[in-house]
Amino acid sequence: MSGYIRMNRRRKIYEGKAKILYEGPEPGTLVQHFKDDATAFNKQKHAQIEGKGVLNNRISEFIFQNLNAIGVPTHFIRRLNMREQLIREVEIIPLEVVVRNVAAGSLSKRLGMEEGVQLPRSIIEFYYKNDELGDPMVSEEHITAFGWASPQEIDDMMSLALRVNDFLVGLFLGVGIRLVDFKIELGRLYEGDMMRIVLADEISPDSCRLWDMKSGEKLDKDRFRRDMGGLVEAYQEVARRLGIMTGGEANPPRGPVLVK
Amino acid sequence: MSGYIRMNRRRKIYEGKAKILYEGPEPGTLVQHFKDDATAFNKQKHAQIEGKGVLNNRISEFIFQNLNAIGVPTHFIRRLNMREQLIREVEIIPLEVVVRNVAAGSLSKRLGMEEGVQLPRSIIEFYYKNDELGDPMVSEEHITAFGWASPQEIDDMMSLALRVNDFLVGLFLGVGIRLVDFKIELGRLYEGDMMRIVLADEISPDSCRLWDMKSGEKLDKDRFRRDMGGLVEAYQEVARRLGIMTGGEANPPRGPVLVK
Ligand SMILES: Nc1ncnc2c1ncn2[C@@H]1O[C@H](COP(=O)(O)OP(=O)(O)OP(=O)(O)O)[C@@H](O)[C@H]1O
Ligand SMILES: Nc1ncnc2c1ncn2[C@@H]1O[C@H](COP(=O)(O)OP(=O)(O)OP(=O)(O)O)[C@@H](O)[C@H]1O
Ligand SMILES: [Mg+2]
Ligand SMILES: [Mg+2]
Repeated sequence: MSGYIRMNRRRKIYEGKAKILYEGPEPGTLVQHFKDDATAFNKQKHAQIEGKGVLNNRISEFIFQNLNAIGVPTHFIRRLNMREQLIREVEIIPLEVVVRNVAAGSLSKRLGMEEGVQLPRSIIEFYYKNDELGDPMVSEEHITAFGWASPQEIDDMMSLALRVNDFLVGLFLGVGIRLVDFKIELGRLYEGDMMRIVLADEISPDSCRLWDMKSGEKLDKDRFRRDMGGLVEAYQEVARRLGIMTGGEANPPRGPVLVK
Repeated sequence: MSGYIRMNRRRKIYEGKAKILYEGPEPGTLVQHFKDDATAFNKQKHAQIEGKGVLNNRISEFIFQNLNAIGVPTHFIRRLNMREQLIREVEIIPLEVVVRNVAAGSLSKRLGMEEGVQLPRSIIEFYYKNDELGDPMVSEEHITAFGWASPQEIDDMMSLALRVNDFLVGLFLGVGIRLVDFKIELGRLYEGDMMRIVLADEISPDSCRLWDMKSGEKLDKDRFRRDMGGLVEAYQEVARRLGIMTGGEANPPRGPVLVK
């Protein structure tokens, strides 16, 4: 049976806004396929942005591989092709975990803080993953009362989130980018009798706020949310600086980032 | 100097939406004066409701006295007259602490739960006291990052809030009322070198959701928020059942609560 036929026959598990999950080649694995779709404001805004999926697949691969290497457990096994990666299936915890270093977006609005203000320390926020309710912010009290995660799991998620933040702040600092905030998803990985919490989903300019250190230019999905254009160019610049798709080392920033 | 003159000369410290604070007779004390004003939705709605202040002064006195008696520290010293009570001045922690037993109000909206659904356990929520921002919900992460309270103080506030909830659930159960939720404010009381957290502000039908056990009728400020009328009659019924202003014991509910 050729690979071509096999690809066509595989079972679709879930189609989301930005990715599709297919059944993987072995039990307990999935194929994560990155689409070019961009959505914002709970799908009110939607577009196809050619090349985004390919870039996010590579950027997320790069980050997850390096997190695995420093002992942060993730669902990532290996990249399969331009748009797909092989991952371990997990039971997704229905929370978006946001880590913030600098005030921006919804935090600025809710707490009346100007965008760009450095926070006194990194802040972790939880949002209940529920599109119908617009992913409302929740606290540990809601999470444990409604059984979305146990107190021990919340502790584990917070530790993992802070390790990811430490790594990403450093990584982006090294290539002239300020990590303002990012969102991760975590899941329960069952291995025999054991269960542990691992990083799942993706980390890419779709799920981070990345500002060029010098110019302040946005190199992330806010370009789409705020109709600024130049999204693919920004993601390309992030990939280039990280040394992705050039086969090279991490690259320093070069001149003005985006052609306006 | 007559009491009359003294009253007129005392210094106003703060005038809020429902109460006025005056300088007290001794350092470290204040006089809390209950007005008849009712406001809702961050002052968008405002009315005078004759008799409300007198009722809240008495109901809050009753609750704080009994909390003091079971060892829950409060700012309450003694009632002075129909509308005023003597309290200890505290440094108010800028958080509204909400305890919920049953889904209602903003929790129902945010988490898509029908009003009246019993929660799996009591849930504590924190809101940042800031009218301009509309008192946004915050989590322990925001509270500690921005220094509004320390982790130890959060623990103390949560313990106090749960004790108040235990007491109030029991109290209202005894008089045929379901305690759906309530909001408290806490403050730092300095005594020499010592500081402890005590219950401040008020507990009244302005700050609780109280439903008649049998009929489900609302006996709280939601009558005002939702234009249902009969607010004073409802507060009177709460006072009557608690045995306040009748000089008697706690009274059982009697027939239909409110004349419609
Ligand atoms: N390792 C994994 N195992 C199982 N599910 C995963 C794993 N990693 C990510 N997912 C889930 O796969 C989906 C990825 O699709 P996508 O991100 O496009 O969804 P979405 O439209 O953003 O919706 P959602 O709100 O669920 O994220 C998400 O629901 C994500 O939670
Ligand atoms: N023991 C106390 N010492 C100092 N301040 C107190 C004490 N008890 C209550 N307060 C404060 O007194 C004020 C009471 O007034 P009121 O409740 O009408 O204010 P408000 O308009 O609701 O505004 P706020 O949002 O501050 O409560 C509140 O600001 C409350 O925090
Ligand atoms: Mg997603
Ligand atoms: Mg008040």
